[in-house]
Amino acid sequence: MRTIGVGLIGTGFMGKCHTLAYRSVRAVFDTAFTPRLVRVCDRRADAAESHAARSGFERATDDWRTVVEDAEVDIVSITTPNKFHCEMALASLEAGKHVYCEKPLALTLDEAERMAAAAAKAVGKTIVGYGYLCNPLYQHARALVGSGAVGRPLFFRGVCDEDYQADPELPWTWRSAKAEAGLGVLGDMMCHLVSMADGLLGPIESVLADCRTHYATRPATGGERLAVENEDVASALVTFESGVTGMISSSRAAWGRKNHLAWELHGDAGMLVQDQERMNELQLFRNEGPTRDQGFKTILAGPAHEPYGKFCPAPGHGLGFNDLKTIELANFLNAIADDAPAYPDFTAALRFERVIHAIARSAESGARVRIANVL
Amino acid sequence: MRTIGVGLIGTGFMGKCHTLAYRSVRAVFDTAFTPRLVRVCDRRADAAESHAARSGFERATDDWRTVVEDAEVDIVSITTPNKFHCEMALASLEAGKHVYCEKPLALTLDEAERMAAAAAKAVGKTIVGYGYLCNPLYQHARALVGSGAVGRPLFFRGVCDEDYQADPELPWTWRSAKAEAGLGVLGDMMCHLVSMADGLLGPIESVLADCRTHYATRPATGGERLAVENEDVASALVTFESGVTGMISSSRAAWGRKNHLAWELHGDAGMLVQDQERMNELQLFRNEGPTRDQGFKTILAGPAHEPYGKFCPAPGHGLGFNDLKTIELANFLNAIADDAPAYPDFTAALRFERVIHAIARSAESGARVRIANVL
Amino acid sequence: MRTIGVGLIGTGFMGKCHTLAYRSVRAVFDTAFTPRLVRVCDRRADAAESHAARSGFERATDDWRTVVEDAEVDIVSITTPNKFHCEMALASLEAGKHVYCEKPLALTLDEAERMAAAAAKAVGKTIVGYGYLCNPLYQHARALVGSGAVGRPLFFRGVCDEDYQADPELPWTWRSAKAEAGLGVLGDMMCHLVSMADGLLGPIESVLADCRTHYATRPATGGERLAVENEDVASALVTFESGVTGMISSSRAAWGRKNHLAWELHGDAGMLVQDQERMNELQLFRNEGPTRDQGFKTILAGPAHEPYGKFCPAPGHGLGFNDLKTIELANFLNAIADDAPAYPDFTAALRFERVIHAIARSAESGARVRIANVL
Amino acid sequence: MRTIGVGLIGTGFMGKCHTLAYRSVRAVFDTAFTPRLVRVCDRRADAAESHAARSGFERATDDWRTVVEDAEVDIVSITTPNKFHCEMALASLEAGKHVYCEKPLALTLDEAERMAAAAAKAVGKTIVGYGYLCNPLYQHARALVGSGAVGRPLFFRGVCDEDYQADPELPWTWRSAKAEAGLGVLGDMMCHLVSMADGLLGPIESVLADCRTHYATRPATGGERLAVENEDVASALVTFESGVTGMISSSRAAWGRKNHLAWELHGDAGMLVQDQERMNELQLFRNEGPTRDQGFKTILAGPAHEPYGKFCPAPGHGLGFNDLKTIELANFLNAIADDAPAYPDFTAALRFERVIHAIARSAESGARVRIANVL
Repeated sequence: MRTIGVGLIGTGFMGKCHTLAYRSVRAVFDTAFTPRLVRVCDRRADAAESHAARSGFERATDDWRTVVEDAEVDIVSITTPNKFHCEMALASLEAGKHVYCEKPLALTLDEAERMAAAAAKAVGKTIVGYGYLCNPLYQHARALVGSGAVGRPLFFRGVCDEDYQADPELPWTWRSAKAEAGLGVLGDMMCHLVSMADGLLGPIESVLADCRTHYATRPATGGERLAVENEDVASALVTFESGVTGMISSSRAAWGRKNHLAWELHGDAGMLVQDQERMNELQLFRNEGPTRDQGFKTILAGPAHEPYGKFCPAPGHGLGFNDLKTIELANFLNAIADDAPAYPDFTAALRFERVIHAIARSAESGARVRIANVL
Repeated sequence: MRTIGVGLIGTGFMGKCHTLAYRSVRAVFDTAFTPRLVRVCDRRADAAESHAARSGFERATDDWRTVVEDAEVDIVSITTPNKFHCEMALASLEAGKHVYCEKPLALTLDEAERMAAAAAKAVGKTIVGYGYLCNPLYQHARALVGSGAVGRPLFFRGVCDEDYQADPELPWTWRSAKAEAGLGVLGDMMCHLVSMADGLLGPIESVLADCRTHYATRPATGGERLAVENEDVASALVTFESGVTGMISSSRAAWGRKNHLAWELHGDAGMLVQDQERMNELQLFRNEGPTRDQGFKTILAGPAHEPYGKFCPAPGHGLGFNDLKTIELANFLNAIADDAPAYPDFTAALRFERVIHAIARSAESGARVRIANVL
Repeated sequence: MRTIGVGLIGTGFMGKCHTLAYRSVRAVFDTAFTPRLVRVCDRRADAAESHAARSGFERATDDWRTVVEDAEVDIVSITTPNKFHCEMALASLEAGKHVYCEKPLALTLDEAERMAAAAAKAVGKTIVGYGYLCNPLYQHARALVGSGAVGRPLFFRGVCDEDYQADPELPWTWRSAKAEAGLGVLGDMMCHLVSMADGLLGPIESVLADCRTHYATRPATGGERLAVENEDVASALVTFESGVTGMISSSRAAWGRKNHLAWELHGDAGMLVQDQERMNELQLFRNEGPTRDQGFKTILAGPAHEPYGKFCPAPGHGLGFNDLKTIELANFLNAIADDAPAYPDFTAALRFERVIHAIARSAESGARVRIANVL
Repeated sequence: MRTIGVGLIGTGFMGKCHTLAYRSVRAVFDTAFTPRLVRVCDRRADAAESHAARSGFERATDDWRTVVEDAEVDIVSITTPNKFHCEMALASLEAGKHVYCEKPLALTLDEAERMAAAAAKAVGKTIVGYGYLCNPLYQHARALVGSGAVGRPLFFRGVCDEDYQADPELPWTWRSAKAEAGLGVLGDMMCHLVSMADGLLGPIESVLADCRTHYATRPATGGERLAVENEDVASALVTFESGVTGMISSSRAAWGRKNHLAWELHGDAGMLVQDQERMNELQLFRNEGPTRDQGFKTILAGPAHEPYGKFCPAPGHGLGFNDLKTIELANFLNAIADDAPAYPDFTAALRFERVIHAIARSAESGARVRIANVL
């Protein structure tokens, strides 16, 4: 059995996710590699030390470059704030590492383009953390579309809502600053929805969009109010390259929604509906059999939906959010072992992220923006 | 107790609805008037005769003008195909009748404008059959918005989907012909959604839209295929006069959806969600109390939601689609008795219908259309 | 067209229901008879007068015997409190009338037996108001069971919960007195569940039960507390004559439940689930097709489920509680026209009500009670 | 940081669960101990070797006694078929180990009693794998009951249904043999429901029950049919020591149900409802505020429900089945560190399992069985 050396940069929300995935993946999957936890980095040295001790990393550091330079590190996991992604990813690729980067790729489209270009030339493989693509029932939905179960696709609707910025009196943070966070809800959430639409229906060709900032300012620590510089809600009429049309919308100020990443695909023989808040369910309507017995079917995730069965042989017992990251990692390890592209690599992620930047541009101009033309 | 003479034109889907409402309204409501069923008209004389015999109309006719001219008729109910609405309504108003007209007002915006203009000068009252506005839980939602229960409105999303044109092999009918039906799903369904959005958030100011015809042709009786001349699906980014934004979408080719007239209103302190397929339920989220106990509340219709209790003193027992028309009629009879405008009268309905025509225009031009400018 | 004379006793909750049904039935159904509203009775003369004026009854009275004796009355509707049912029904049958009696038949099993015996010898037809049996999707469920869609029936579970007696501080009413109301939740609600179980699986053979009174006393008007003499909740293990087993339970003190009359039938090839709070939905699971695509299907009521289409040609638009009574009445009018038994007549209703009395007996003794032996 | 040596017996469904928990627990929780994976056992030596290699156990064996005798093993995880639990647990306790045993404790009540007696005298701590008790929203439900949020408890209903034995043509396995499996659905599933009821309302005092075997025989490999010796469905009327009553029911032949471990608790001020198939949701109804705004609230799991936030800082993102075992393990490690009883230890588990044996006895006799008297 081969081991593969892991370096992790960042120990927050996603840093813990990656760690859990590295620790679980071989107990769940028959991957060619067994992860060896080599080095973890956090800007706060004590956080890095503590994470290493708890999670079994051999070395800790507060300097991310030592991770990239560590000869025993094969994969670099980047889970830092978005503005650091580009530099870290470029350095890692240059050092010959494989890169597992959280989404979105970067603050700006320019950075993302550079990252994808670097990845195309690098020996290391890349993958971006669009973990909802790993939901077994989402993949089942894709298979159903592919097999014609709902007929010719006609139309798509999707939303991606949370409420973490719904409270008008929530204090101002770096997330509201363009220079720190880049886009608002587009970069944080809409890109997930785009990745799912893309997987179901292929690339989006153009968008006609509207974005709004609900709360112009937020209270800062000194008592003053600072400007919110990016959008709270974004909506777009979209056309896919296939000619299918649809609409997508995302809000970070949608009270009561916690992970309402939901979509529906209308086909000429049926419909599929999914909501990530009930991630272990998929709704399927097919125009088959007598009308009196037709209806939306609620499919519960089970071993029939690979790789659910790797986690649990009993259907309906439920995967969780972190399990999706374990699947994502297994996909990456398999790609590395097979010397094949992982999905979504930097190229695919760039395709998703061009869409969110196109939405921002269209909202500014009021005109339709073709993805191919977005700068 | 005063009686009020009723003339009904059309005995189809909506003709039966109106009849049931006229027969039930006084057993349910304390209206000033008791309907007297004077005359019913259908182009097929036998259908008119049969309807009269079953439903208690005193006279039957196959000439709609005899209804309008009948001195004992006070209210004219117009439930014929859309293309007849204008002529019948204008004649009725001119004859001094009250007019209860099904939606949409007319085939074209021009006709609708003429109807509203005539109504404004007439002695008779008018009402248009936007029956979902009468759903007690929709009215409760309006009251909640008005009382600030969800805070300042921020954003709106709505869909209105059915599948009556989802089957690609469904035969061609007059509904697909522009000259017969006018708009497609916009006139048949989207106008309902617009009426509900308007009631919650006030008038829409402008739209940026996209419309598509999924099935370019449909099989005709002779074996040939005829063109579908109007849209199967329509979507729009909207801005309300209040500054609130949103998106609305409607499809008549959405497999599995039967009356999925659903909307959500995001406020800065909560959210409301409703779906007419579960018309006796309303979802309410409020940012109040400890986070650990927050969640969407499913409110079941009951006597606390007037006028539910007029139909049934027990909550949760459920109103049906036809009951909404009985409420609509009671509203109309009350308006007549009070010599006050009914809601929605021709003026209000024109406001809704300008929006659907604006959507059609915007979809043609690709540019934002202001409702005030639509021709 | 033949008319049939109607006499109504009682103008409360169910009196209004019956009136609406009489006024609507011919506009909806092709019944042989058209109801003529002859005479209405209420103990309060003004209530009777007012009901007559509003609803079109020709005569009003405060003496129920004048209804029974009215030669122009063919059907007597009995919607009074339970303790009057027996005397009124017997008098009506003796007078040669058809009797439409609300459930339960009577206060005591002895009375119910006498009513059924009288009905068996009478010329008039009888029907008892078990209106949920008229839900088109319940009838569809029965058809599915009959056609083997869920295979051999194995097991049944049902509940019937409301919360109208959930508040511990609700004042004492006659409903809590054995002499006035007879049984508690068994007579008010459990009998509905029994009627539905019986329709799906045939007669129940024996029960093993437990009943409880949650609130021993309730506050009376004078400030004192009076005893609650009947049960708030009742549960039973049941065996059907077919050998199928199951369990049923009903509470009138179930906070949040408004009409939660819900059941599930386990078959060896599938399952059916229904909840009257979502009366326009039926859940069906069938073990067919690939496992990965299996799931519970939500069937929405539509014209494919007769007689839904008589009310509305569009599926998913929803029937309401009162519509079920209109169907019930149509069934009764058809039975009268065909000189055939209606369903459920007094004989069938007695079968249901023997079960609730058996439950009460079993709860007292702690031993299994055979329905055939209940006294 | 202290390590704690782990020995695992069994590498199937639950063996993998335990392994994942041991590998994840320290990355998630601040437990005093870090697990060290010392030795794994499977009767098939190659399965043990393979599991060790993948999951990081230092040693593998096909002789479970070497696990018990391994001086570096502190905790023994027992995940073998039920009939081995007793012998393994007794040996482990005798060797001074802590024991993490899967449910049910044993095949027979006698064995379970011996295990509990041994545990009471042992230095090692015990815990039994009733993992659903670790669902954060179940614990929140308990807290709500404890704080009076739904008032005085009145009544309980619960079901626990799956369909893994629903197919009548499923081959016979050892699960159908009394000597191999002991009880049927009672031991496999009903005990979970009992553990949850007990946690909400305290111990059950007596039961009155009915059990059935739907499929008397199943096809065996030789073509013959072998008898199914234990129950497919079990139902019971229960009385808690507190005086609260209820009913519970469990089937392993309920088509479409995958993990339908669902219960509702009626209080005099509200109701709680939960279904493990939607394990990240809890339904709460409270009689508070105006009637018009009352309804069941759907609470989504989040950081407000400890220890959800240890896994993920974002609410509504969802825990999975395996996460519950990680929580269970953390509870056990904390108990060991604190030298305090874990929950549920062998004593508590025996209390649950006496109830399922009492149900079996009552179903045989037809009489109520007191838990205190069950042998």
